[in-house]
Amino acid sequence: MLWVLNYFCGMHSTEFYQKAFLTYLHEYAEDKEPSTLYSPINYILGLGGKRLRPILTLMTTEIFDTDYQEGLNAALSIEVFHNFSLVHDDIMDDAPLRRGQQTVHEKWDVNTGILSGDAMLIMAYQLFENYDGVVFQSLAKLFSKTALEVCEGQQYDVDFETRNDVSTPEYLRMIEYKTAVLVGAAMQMGAIVAGASKSCQENIYDFGRNLGIAFQLQDDYLDVFGDPKSFGKQVGGDIIENKKTYLYLKAMEFSSGSDKIKLHDLFQGRPDNTDRKIDAVKNIFLDTGSADATKSAIKEYTNKAFSILNHLNISEEKKSVLKDFGEYLMKREA
Amino acid sequence: MLWVLNYFCGMHSTEFYQKAFLTYLHEYAEDKEPSTLYSPINYILGLGGKRLRPILTLMTTEIFDTDYQEGLNAALSIEVFHNFSLVHDDIMDDAPLRRGQQTVHEKWDVNTGILSGDAMLIMAYQLFENYDGVVFQSLAKLFSKTALEVCEGQQYDVDFETRNDVSTPEYLRMIEYKTAVLVGAAMQMGAIVAGASKSCQENIYDFGRNLGIAFQLQDDYLDVFGDPKSFGKQVGGDIIENKKTYLYLKAMEFSSGSDKIKLHDLFQGRPDNTDRKIDAVKNIFLDTGSADATKSAIKEYTNKAFSILNHLNISEEKKSVLKDFGEYLMKREA
Repeated sequence: MLWVLNYFCGMHSTEFYQKAFLTYLHEYAEDKEPSTLYSPINYILGLGGKRLRPILTLMTTEIFDTDYQEGLNAALSIEVFHNFSLVHDDIMDDAPLRRGQQTVHEKWDVNTGILSGDAMLIMAYQLFENYDGVVFQSLAKLFSKTALEVCEGQQYDVDFETRNDVSTPEYLRMIEYKTAVLVGAAMQMGAIVAGASKSCQENIYDFGRNLGIAFQLQDDYLDVFGDPKSFGKQVGGDIIENKKTYLYLKAMEFSSGSDKIKLHDLFQGRPDNTDRKIDAVKNIFLDTGSADATKSAIKEYTNKAFSILNHLNISEEKKSVLKDFGEYLMKREA
Repeated sequence: MLWVLNYFCGMHSTEFYQKAFLTYLHEYAEDKEPSTLYSPINYILGLGGKRLRPILTLMTTEIFDTDYQEGLNAALSIEVFHNFSLVHDDIMDDAPLRRGQQTVHEKWDVNTGILSGDAMLIMAYQLFENYDGVVFQSLAKLFSKTALEVCEGQQYDVDFETRNDVSTPEYLRMIEYKTAVLVGAAMQMGAIVAGASKSCQENIYDFGRNLGIAFQLQDDYLDVFGDPKSFGKQVGGDIIENKKTYLYLKAMEFSSGSDKIKLHDLFQGRPDNTDRKIDAVKNIFLDTGSADATKSAIKEYTNKAFSILNHLNISEEKKSVLKDFGEYLMKREA
């Protein structure tokens, strides 16, 4: 982890939150019977990842003046749910690899992936049982709303594959549901655990949601323009897959005539020489201004998130913690 | 519905509960976007079935002196969950038909089945939001515990397919988890909604759980010895599929030497002439005493359920309602 940041406003560093979370996760992942159900769960939870969502929960718990340890079960619930969605999404996408390792349905089989995923969704709810009355109910309600939106986002993503008339607002709603609402919920859960006011909860949710949209747009951008050395995945993967990302939709919007037809045609086929296709599309993204428009949109959503902080009744130092984290996310190269 | 029973102890008939439930279900199934996610959900919920579980929830709500309408959301949650499990199980079993109609993954595709099922599991939880504080928490906790056990039961069922050393207690635990705990939970939820004491809740849960085991053993029995005219499914289906049911396990236990080898061998292959196989296995089940042992076990679990009623502080008339329903279930031919 590169982002060792130490703050001096009663909060811990992101690295500290990550370590604390991993320790807690490790205790949670016990060997239960039937092992054919629980081994795949421990496997996927142990595969790694940046653990951004649980870190945000713990960070938000402390933003609202409560010991981060109070947030551990909510953070774990968010991470278990996130991994449930990865297991089922990987089946739907027929993806062989996740974080450089075999996906669950590849290592075991599709049925194991379905059933272990189902169990994880239930286990995510069970983690709220560590909280009392009102907090339990608030967490479970927010979780259900969010989880259903994530399903809807995934369904829109699937639907978009076979549609040629997806608009930018539709795309933005899709990534909002599929990715951003869970970031918002991860933060609101920290606020709920800390007993923050309803208005604080709503603001921190909106902060996270906007940051989540910026984060996903950044993902789209890095997939095309990332540095192959640091990106970790194959640069151009979305282009090879003909994914109609924000870059593609904006390029279609900004082009006309033969350019538009060329881009459309490039996104129909799957040529053997992917490098040439990637280069051609990359140039169109640059020439049409779609790359710049995407960078602007990332900035716009990040700034939207930051401006929400003005409504939050927390210290300037704490606002800086959130801003620094947001800026770190937008500067990342992987 | 054959079982029009009218009672005179402040309770309604099972037919009344069923109709009330279907009306409520119909209001619930609205067309939401994305329709690719919600249409399959409305489809499976509309396919029919006996609606035994939600009826039991409504019945139990009234057993504990509360208007059945209070139990409608809990009953619906149980039914939505039950149908979620059918959608995912049908994918795992590669089943083309459910209640004589196309399964969701056949009518749409596997991905739709996975994602719509996931949404249903979340929607089942959301239905508890119609209840307040303590009731909400009690329902959600019971639901999570039960849902996870259903997943474990399904996993054991999958595991047993490739095992040759499954014991009777293991089989009974499998059907308890896969089927019976949901019957118990359906009844306990009615008790929770009605504000019944913890001990009443536990007793009615145990009543339902034992009845559920008897119900599943009866299912196994009818699959072999049911009347083809009234059974509705193909008699002998489990034998064709080499399913190691209670009948098979008991026959293996009661036989030895060449008989045991013959039965074992019959359950290895998939001959073209299924009728001859079914007849041969049927005779072994009768000759070894396994058919009788299964009938005894059904009686045993039914009686276990009935004896639990002695601990319940409800009127004799209400106990009769529960007994009559239990006896109806055990006399059914489909």
